[in-house]
Amino acid sequence: MAKTSIDKAVLKKGILAGDRASLSRAITLCESHLSIDQELSLMLLEELHSHSGNSLRIGVSGIPGAGKSTFIEALGMELIGKHQKKIAVLTIDPSSESSGGSILGDKTRMNDLSRSPNAFIRPTATNTQLGGVGQHTQAAILLCEAAGFDTIIIETVGVGQSELNVNKMVDVFLLLHIVGAGDDLQGMKRGILECADLVVINKADEGQEQKAALEASNLKKALHLFPQKHLGWSTKVFTCSSIEKRGISAIWNSIQAHQEQLKSTQQFDLQRKHQTQAWFADLQRRSIVDFVLLQPEIQELINRAKAQMESEEISFISLLRNTKIALSELFSPPKKDKEITKK
Amino acid sequence: MAKTSIDKAVLKKGILAGDRASLSRAITLCESHLSIDQELSLMLLEELHSHSGNSLRIGVSGIPGAGKSTFIEALGMELIGKHQKKIAVLTIDPSSESSGGSILGDKTRMNDLSRSPNAFIRPTATNTQLGGVGQHTQAAILLCEAAGFDTIIIETVGVGQSELNVNKMVDVFLLLHIVGAGDDLQGMKRGILECADLVVINKADEGQEQKAALEASNLKKALHLFPQKHLGWSTKVFTCSSIEKRGISAIWNSIQAHQEQLKSTQQFDLQRKHQTQAWFADLQRRSIVDFVLLQPEIQELINRAKAQMESEEISFISLLRNTKIALSELFSPPKKDKEITKK
Repeated sequence: MAKTSIDKAVLKKGILAGDRASLSRAITLCESHLSIDQELSLMLLEELHSHSGNSLRIGVSGIPGAGKSTFIEALGMELIGKHQKKIAVLTIDPSSESSGGSILGDKTRMNDLSRSPNAFIRPTATNTQLGGVGQHTQAAILLCEAAGFDTIIIETVGVGQSELNVNKMVDVFLLLHIVGAGDDLQGMKRGILECADLVVINKADEGQEQKAALEASNLKKALHLFPQKHLGWSTKVFTCSSIEKRGISAIWNSIQAHQEQLKSTQQFDLQRKHQTQAWFADLQRRSIVDFVLLQPEIQELINRAKAQMESEEISFISLLRNTKIALSELFSPPKKDKEITKK
Repeated sequence: MAKTSIDKAVLKKGILAGDRASLSRAITLCESHLSIDQELSLMLLEELHSHSGNSLRIGVSGIPGAGKSTFIEALGMELIGKHQKKIAVLTIDPSSESSGGSILGDKTRMNDLSRSPNAFIRPTATNTQLGGVGQHTQAAILLCEAAGFDTIIIETVGVGQSELNVNKMVDVFLLLHIVGAGDDLQGMKRGILECADLVVINKADEGQEQKAALEASNLKKALHLFPQKHLGWSTKVFTCSSIEKRGISAIWNSIQAHQEQLKSTQQFDLQRKHQTQAWFADLQRRSIVDFVLLQPEIQELINRAKAQMESEEISFISLLRNTKIALSELFSPPKKDKEITKK
């Protein structure tokens, strides 16, 4: 039997003891494309599943320049200092296809937080092939919880699909705006605003307070038109200055009030249950797709099409229809065929 | 035989005559999830394929607030007025999952352009289920070209996967920045900058010119570190004011120079060929996945898992492994089985 260099029992023990190196290695294992690693990571996740779930999962989103890192650092340091929390920050980074990284490394951001023994910061890669934000991040959340982190912050860059995915894996969703980005509303999609439990107008720094307050008031009016995401909770709007560390406590209090509201109405457990089920359904779907695409018959179909395209012998839309015919033949029930041939 | 209400021959004739209503209906047909519509749209695309390809395809991207609509309107009006072009604008709109729309309708944007008889503006939906920007947009490009539009502008909102997808279907890719968004570079992913043939610093309005020029100069230095996307073309940086209609001509001249460079080195045809092949590979992959997920055996697998999750009888990671076992059995070569049983 092939032996892998990673000892699952040692890794599990390390994670449960809160060892960061073990946690990091386990997240890397979950991100691996090798089937041996995937098998191992599934076993590890299964064993650690009962140790997970005891955290508050916070999603933080906003367009580039909204100050997400500074905000997360301010919130994180306050939670560590005043509330003895242990913070894991998972940043979702739409990978560069060409070179696999951002211009400025994530290490230069969140300086204070990254030095704290009670914080763990980890960028999680998105799988561009399948466009999946969910899969690896969900696994990383589970692992961080098993390692004893009680507050998980998931940061997403950009405006679009990734926010909607993150909304499906957090208990509370914060959307960051910036003062003075008035016509941002135009670019801000309704679907993302609908996900927000709290909207935070950041960069309400000294001299900008009044402007920020006006924008907060306008935003409140706009949000009034939206349906409630959670029973008994209408989206709250806050202003804050992450750099001057003002307004952070009020946001934290509101996050806690949101959680109390959800827990008092059984919505917390229900949301978690639905999220787990959605994660599983997604994992199952991907696993089916991966499996099927690797089948020799399907690979042959893909390679044949590629060769025909290369030689330009055939219109590509005809080729596509041939693919469907080949698939139909492949999936015609074999038992029935046998019966027919017997007759 | 079931009859559809859409007459393909009439639709084809309408499109080739440049009729906007026919073009709109055909794009809607391509976006349909009904298999009868998909079949029809494939036939239509195949028949119109030979009438497509004769356009310049321009991708325009940038974060919300960068002024994409204003820029496209300024560029479009200039091309229509000075160069007798016919412009189709396809805006890619990450759909709202909850309600399927943006807060401010796209109709309020690009006022002048939307009134011009030589412009056609159409938001194309993204298929959130499969995360696909590509499929419908590629079809829409083909249809617009068949309808006689010689300049196709594809606008994407947000920063992330959709830009990388759009880059795979255009001849030239423009990235819009705004003056004063200094630390935007941090959020701007390397992969997206690597796609840019031109970077435009927008909102260089009166009084902002100097600041914009400084930022352009800094950006040029940063871009210097990047590999060339096209042989003989390093990414150009421009400043412009879309509202004051300044700097637009220089950008258009540079787009043309870019096309000449690509055509003189055979890169234009090669890029188009690769794009068509990538589109086809993507279509084929999606068609395989769609087909497989609809098979009764696979549906049963998914439904069984759902029921088990609902009753919480079983760990979901175990369930996932059961799925793999079921798939392996489903895909075990039937011919081999027969041989074994014969022996």
